[in-house]
Amino acid sequence: MKLDLLNKHQDAINTAVKAIHERTFFAHYPENPSPEIYGENADKEGREKYKAHLNSKFDELLQKDPEQWVGQEESPYEQQALNVKYPFFSPETLVNRAEEAYHQWRKVKPADRAALLVESLERVKTRFFEVAYATMHTTGQAYMMSFQASGPHAADRALEAIAAGFEEQTRFPEATEWEKPMGKYNLKLNKTWKAVPKGVALVIGCSTFPTWNSVPGMYASLVTGNPVIVKPHPKAVLPIAIFVAEVQKVLEENGLNPNICQLAVDADDRLITKDLAEHPKVKLIDYTGGTEFGNYVEGLKGKTVFTEKTGVNSIILDSVEDLDKVAQNLAFSVSLYSGQMCTAPQNFFIPERGIKVGGEQVPFDDVVKKLTDAVTGLVNNPKAAPHILGAIQNPATAERVKSASSVKGKEVLSTCDFDHPMFANARTCTPVVYEVDASEKESYSRELFGPIMLIIKTKDTDQSIELAKEMAMEYGAISCGAYTTNSEVKEKIMDEMSLAGTPVSFNLTGGIYVNQNASFSDFHVTGGNPAGNASFTNPEFVIKRFTWVGFREPALG
Amino acid sequence: MKLDLLNKHQDAINTAVKAIHERTFFAHYPENPSPEIYGENADKEGREKYKAHLNSKFDELLQKDPEQWVGQEESPYEQQALNVKYPFFSPETLVNRAEEAYHQWRKVKPADRAALLVESLERVKTRFFEVAYATMHTTGQAYMMSFQASGPHAADRALEAIAAGFEEQTRFPEATEWEKPMGKYNLKLNKTWKAVPKGVALVIGCSTFPTWNSVPGMYASLVTGNPVIVKPHPKAVLPIAIFVAEVQKVLEENGLNPNICQLAVDADDRLITKDLAEHPKVKLIDYTGGTEFGNYVEGLKGKTVFTEKTGVNSIILDSVEDLDKVAQNLAFSVSLYSGQMCTAPQNFFIPERGIKVGGEQVPFDDVVKKLTDAVTGLVNNPKAAPHILGAIQNPATAERVKSASSVKGKEVLSTCDFDHPMFANARTCTPVVYEVDASEKESYSRELFGPIMLIIKTKDTDQSIELAKEMAMEYGAISCGAYTTNSEVKEKIMDEMSLAGTPVSFNLTGGIYVNQNASFSDFHVTGGNPAGNASFTNPEFVIKRFTWVGFREPALG
Repeated sequence: MKLDLLNKHQDAINTAVKAIHERTFFAHYPENPSPEIYGENADKEGREKYKAHLNSKFDELLQKDPEQWVGQEESPYEQQALNVKYPFFSPETLVNRAEEAYHQWRKVKPADRAALLVESLERVKTRFFEVAYATMHTTGQAYMMSFQASGPHAADRALEAIAAGFEEQTRFPEATEWEKPMGKYNLKLNKTWKAVPKGVALVIGCSTFPTWNSVPGMYASLVTGNPVIVKPHPKAVLPIAIFVAEVQKVLEENGLNPNICQLAVDADDRLITKDLAEHPKVKLIDYTGGTEFGNYVEGLKGKTVFTEKTGVNSIILDSVEDLDKVAQNLAFSVSLYSGQMCTAPQNFFIPERGIKVGGEQVPFDDVVKKLTDAVTGLVNNPKAAPHILGAIQNPATAERVKSASSVKGKEVLSTCDFDHPMFANARTCTPVVYEVDASEKESYSRELFGPIMLIIKTKDTDQSIELAKEMAMEYGAISCGAYTTNSEVKEKIMDEMSLAGTPVSFNLTGGIYVNQNASFSDFHVTGGNPAGNASFTNPEFVIKRFTWVGFREPALG
Repeated sequence: MKLDLLNKHQDAINTAVKAIHERTFFAHYPENPSPEIYGENADKEGREKYKAHLNSKFDELLQKDPEQWVGQEESPYEQQALNVKYPFFSPETLVNRAEEAYHQWRKVKPADRAALLVESLERVKTRFFEVAYATMHTTGQAYMMSFQASGPHAADRALEAIAAGFEEQTRFPEATEWEKPMGKYNLKLNKTWKAVPKGVALVIGCSTFPTWNSVPGMYASLVTGNPVIVKPHPKAVLPIAIFVAEVQKVLEENGLNPNICQLAVDADDRLITKDLAEHPKVKLIDYTGGTEFGNYVEGLKGKTVFTEKTGVNSIILDSVEDLDKVAQNLAFSVSLYSGQMCTAPQNFFIPERGIKVGGEQVPFDDVVKKLTDAVTGLVNNPKAAPHILGAIQNPATAERVKSASSVKGKEVLSTCDFDHPMFANARTCTPVVYEVDASEKESYSRELFGPIMLIIKTKDTDQSIELAKEMAMEYGAISCGAYTTNSEVKEKIMDEMSLAGTPVSFNLTGGIYVNQNASFSDFHVTGGNPAGNASFTNPEFVIKRFTWVGFREPALG
């Protein structure tokens, strides 16, 4: 490499490896968008840079000879096209270029790859605000989430994947002398091993978290020596395009082929994801999105696939100390980014006899009222609501919330549009709450993406646990919240949900929510239920991207 | 546990973990069947114990209420039934018992599981000779291989799997406090993680290596908390039955359900493998055997599968120092256990212009003659041949060797029966050698199991490499041998075969052969080509057997 990037970043990589194993709090990229950290004008400049992309060609990529310029993004806040144009390449061109780049990239040592990739993140760091505005106006996330999720949190998840990949590829010696005592003599072999990357990788992104969900797979494949084709959702390209552009620049500056990491964008009249996914040279696929397409990807032959699909997340209410605090916490969880998070809770299981609150039994209806009141309080707070709810990415989501007619239950809180103080045209809706009987399984046994809260009346907590477990095992779950002051119930929930491969957050109140998931500590998606087979970032997420191959030869003398 | 097994075996486990990472020579179980190591009467007693099983019920297992007693084994040395009878259980009974045992076993800590399993290997160690005779008379392996492969080598591969599983399950903390600075206050969460085993595991064995190929998966699933159903090939049950019996005894002695590890044997009129494999409660499958059944197993939905199927192993001859030594080495490799090894070479690629020998060009025909002469010399040596070739496990293999009519080439050495000095009825045959043109791809692009050697005449070494790589990528390969004195050619072979996921042994002569594969050093099957997706024992071989699930709760105070 031209630049001495390994020296520059080795400490950061080592610290990240250590953090993965300690799993205490660690962040390399500060989540606070404050001027002290990111500079006085960072926000303003970021916004201006974002605006400069509008109605323009995104011409930073180093991919040559585009066939046309395409783009379909529109802002959920303005309900208007961004009109950013990206270069379009046919799947065959993308795969051929990736295959060519593969034979250069696979020969770069894992430590050098890791350093180059960290350098790219450091470059993106200078553009976090630009990425934030790009994220707001593609996903509808509020400003703070756009900044944190797409900037520092995504970069930390990328760093986590780089560190894990670096560690796994260096866990076995590159070379050793194997000497076996044979009685009269010793048999000596020189042995070497290579971590051989599997080949062309494809990363298929989603519309709601265009960087956070895509960079782990992208960086995991890259650090393990595989060239990557990043195929974002056509409605959320710009945030990840900035990551790809920075990777390409770092590669080219270091004498490497920028096609090691390519951006692939659908043309308006040609969706290219299936062509890419089915291409025999594509060996690795990371996918985030709906279950139907995810199952198709998982079913492709001859590919190593990592998926995050959808799930049905549960909250189990058994007993609490302070119901108001719990209700506020849950109202926030269901409202955050209008429920458009894979970790957002949907099914709230409450026993028909109600729950114990500080030792006293509170009836079911009163618990429901507390919850709906908390949601109402939140959405009616004009200073807080817009910054929590954000906007609705997809018109179909707004439609689903407004007409959840397939839910057989009682609507106990209606949804409504709310006026966004900054964006008069924003596509918004507040959470709708239904009360459903446990017997109406069909109503709650699928993901209803968006701010839809189902309160399910169960016989008792045992049934709540049983149903939460069943939902997770049958339909997948990425998160679970449970409230209990009883240690036996807690133990049972842990045991049962562990069998359903679902992490559980207990008794959250205050400023921490079931939706949140911390790099270097929380495994995101366990891989243990139908919500997906990937996990950010357990060792499996990186080691399946390469193969250990050994070589041996008699030692001379 | 009643016995303090963890103290007893922790050192052995730690040493094994260290060995996995150093990958220098390491063996916990001595491979030399000498009286000094195993005791003066060990061999004699082992033989007697083996003989005591004949015409009897194998009644050591702790599995209750068999439905019938079954057994189909016969000795390739005597071509006569062993008439050992094993308890038969229906798949439903086996799975239900495993499922029940699962909920006990998964709660035993990884370190305790590892210690219990090492204890079982220590018990088997006292029965290595008994296992050896059982292996001889089911597989047809010669005595020394029977002892080494089924005894110490298998036990070491089991120990390797135990150590890898122990390490992977303890790589992340059981608990930690996560404390995030939030400006005015710190957010504190107590976090815990569980490595959750996936569920009932099935191990499907083969007829030629009944323990060596089965114990890695069996012990890998057990150490990660999964109950195991061991389903051997109906013709090779006794060797692995002894392992299972010892595991069961250790479990019961320690107050655990012996059904954590069950033996499943086909009835004479009822094959149960598919019923077991397809059972929805069976989550993990380890398979060794033919490709067709292996592909079926890999195609089963909702299972985590580890396979070792068949492959087409190549020898690339480019240039050598001493052709006699090379020919002797290769003659041994092709004759060892009459080619019935998954690592045995089959396709020998030689350029039409011949090869360089000590700097001089030796014509193709002369190289072929050296090789066939070496084979002839070996099989005509009555003191060596029986101990190398052993007997033929399956009559179909002998048939294939004697009538390899589908090979379009010239038979340059015929096969013949040879008289075994100890077993007059032994099913034997010596290697057959064909010369085939590189254009006759159909003839050499599939595994011809048994002592069949195809010498393929190529244009040059580049074509040899290209074909060896193509065979490995298309049809799988588990080993590759290459002979070259040219460092550029060596580099090219390493690079090309690494892309085909095939380990390469260079320039082997003397007492080390391409067929051999050492625990704690050589990864067996890389998982990188169609020969199988498993590898003994890389981290992937154990971590796919469990799921990391996390739990978190606000820390008080």
